[in-house]
Amino acid sequence: MQNLTALSLKTTDGTLYVLDQTLLPQQQQWRACRSVAQLVGMIKQLQLRGAPAIGIGACLLLALRAEQGVSRQQLQQDAEILRAARPTAVNLMNNIDSMLHALATPDYATAAVACAEALFAEDVALCQQMAAHGAALVQPDEQLLTHCNTGGLATAGVGTALGVINLAHQQGKNIRLWVDETRPLLQGGRLTAWECQQLGIPYQLICDNMAAMLMARGQVDRLFVGADRIAANGDFANKVGTYSLAVLAQYHQVPFYVVAPHTTVDLNCPDGSVIPIEQRDASEVRGVCGAFVQTTFHQIIWAPQDAPVFNPAFDVTPASLVTGWVLDTGVYSQQDIASGVLQQLV
Amino acid sequence: MQNLTALSLKTTDGTLYVLDQTLLPQQQQWRACRSVAQLVGMIKQLQLRGAPAIGIGACLLLALRAEQGVSRQQLQQDAEILRAARPTAVNLMNNIDSMLHALATPDYATAAVACAEALFAEDVALCQQMAAHGAALVQPDEQLLTHCNTGGLATAGVGTALGVINLAHQQGKNIRLWVDETRPLLQGGRLTAWECQQLGIPYQLICDNMAAMLMARGQVDRLFVGADRIAANGDFANKVGTYSLAVLAQYHQVPFYVVAPHTTVDLNCPDGSVIPIEQRDASEVRGVCGAFVQTTFHQIIWAPQDAPVFNPAFDVTPASLVTGWVLDTGVYSQQDIASGVLQQLV
Repeated sequence: MQNLTALSLKTTDGTLYVLDQTLLPQQQQWRACRSVAQLVGMIKQLQLRGAPAIGIGACLLLALRAEQGVSRQQLQQDAEILRAARPTAVNLMNNIDSMLHALATPDYATAAVACAEALFAEDVALCQQMAAHGAALVQPDEQLLTHCNTGGLATAGVGTALGVINLAHQQGKNIRLWVDETRPLLQGGRLTAWECQQLGIPYQLICDNMAAMLMARGQVDRLFVGADRIAANGDFANKVGTYSLAVLAQYHQVPFYVVAPHTTVDLNCPDGSVIPIEQRDASEVRGVCGAFVQTTFHQIIWAPQDAPVFNPAFDVTPASLVTGWVLDTGVYSQQDIASGVLQQLV
Repeated sequence: MQNLTALSLKTTDGTLYVLDQTLLPQQQQWRACRSVAQLVGMIKQLQLRGAPAIGIGACLLLALRAEQGVSRQQLQQDAEILRAARPTAVNLMNNIDSMLHALATPDYATAAVACAEALFAEDVALCQQMAAHGAALVQPDEQLLTHCNTGGLATAGVGTALGVINLAHQQGKNIRLWVDETRPLLQGGRLTAWECQQLGIPYQLICDNMAAMLMARGQVDRLFVGADRIAANGDFANKVGTYSLAVLAQYHQVPFYVVAPHTTVDLNCPDGSVIPIEQRDASEVRGVCGAFVQTTFHQIIWAPQDAPVFNPAFDVTPASLVTGWVLDTGVYSQQDIASGVLQQLV
């Protein structure tokens, strides 16, 4: 297989490496990933995260193992194990389906490698297309707000929502970005803040509960968020806190956009109510995990040690709260969605 | 002066002790507080916090110093320094005004002690009255939600919003409580969770961005929050994140109550726009400070070390988003507020 490089994933001489996102921004540590169990662990611990990046990472590992002579049957089992690693993100499932199709062909190893390379290249291209469509919506001097991390770390390319924001920045639109920290796992405070520094995007970090105040003060002109799965009616699941922002944006009449590749659309879900929502460990809400300044990996607990916790990883935003859907194929309005445009894409 | 005891403040044999709230729930450490500079530092670092508790603590220190023979002139200077320690909370300013009145009398030491004792006793009584009025609003089996910490730690008595919730619990109403963690300083995750465990209130801890999802699922029946200052038109300032909850509650048609003593009303503020909002240090948003399990006091940073930050301590909730004002004198509707009831109280 070719040597491929993204911000959080790379293949070098037949080995997959994953940039451990739980250590960012304090440490940049690439971890070799040689087994399916290891990759599943990395996904569950969010060392590898971002719906598109998870899907691509899984396919790269399958392709490398195919190249190493692992049997078709074993690879098919591996694929099913990887498919179950993250229940909400649909990209992973779609990508696994493509790989299973390749694995069913006579020269399955060659086909698997070609499929993984194509999926990687496709993700890069989809990101560019989303960025172009979304950046065209941004007006000069706007203050934007985003949630979680949807940049290069989350995809093989420039990202979804953060890709849009970065392109608007590169186009000289003089944008400023509010980055919410995205509790409990702090993908905003750790990852998006880091990417903004790398990219030179002017940003300010806020706590999740400060967005409403900024909207009330007229300091948010537009929101861009990503999606883990978009239902047939336009409802979508994304990192918990997205729904809250959508309601607040509607109340303050601030345009709210979801940015995702068309591969995020799942026509098997008629609406958001049937998208499965992963519940995660209580320890995430009782404190924080990760690498911190001048420390190695730690778990810090501030709550009572046995505090009962509710910890959904995602929430669902109804289509009625979305101003526009920025896909690689274009920007769609509520009317477009209602008239069935998603059904023609997938 | 009498020996007085509250959950976070006590006087013993002429010395003021403050329970260091930055170390809770991991450590319970009482700190002797002998100087004005020390108390101001404790207030700024939120070792002593909660609008009523700050006001009472300042008065107790002034009274003890008066008893020790400090001059009237010095005490008047002390009072002005203490008044400026926290700009948003109005209780502190009102209490300082009462103490200055006492200090202006001939036997100022006796008057100051009597005034501080009376303010302490008044706060206990006001809390009981608010609790009785507020708990009457709670129906059996309701799921409640609160923000920040408004319990015994924040007052001399049983608290404001959490006092209401605790009384409803004691009345056997089978309530359950969602405690949001209240970033950046985690008064929910650290303090309210701890108080709930002490009081036996069934609770679950959530991140601030999860409240909207719970409201959408019909799992929040009523909200109770505190206030640092209530303007003449009913707008009020409270811990940042309160306004966000008020908008979300209105969108989901969940009743939203503010609970505060009438001493929180500031008729000098015609509306919320003129309430000063304290901006706090960037380090609070870049990470967390406090005592953690198996650690002493630490600062943990997860964001890029120089990440730009927006960090208001409070936000303002307009009267239009409030279902009811639960004061010690009764529960008031929007109509009551509009007809000038607050003007008759103060």
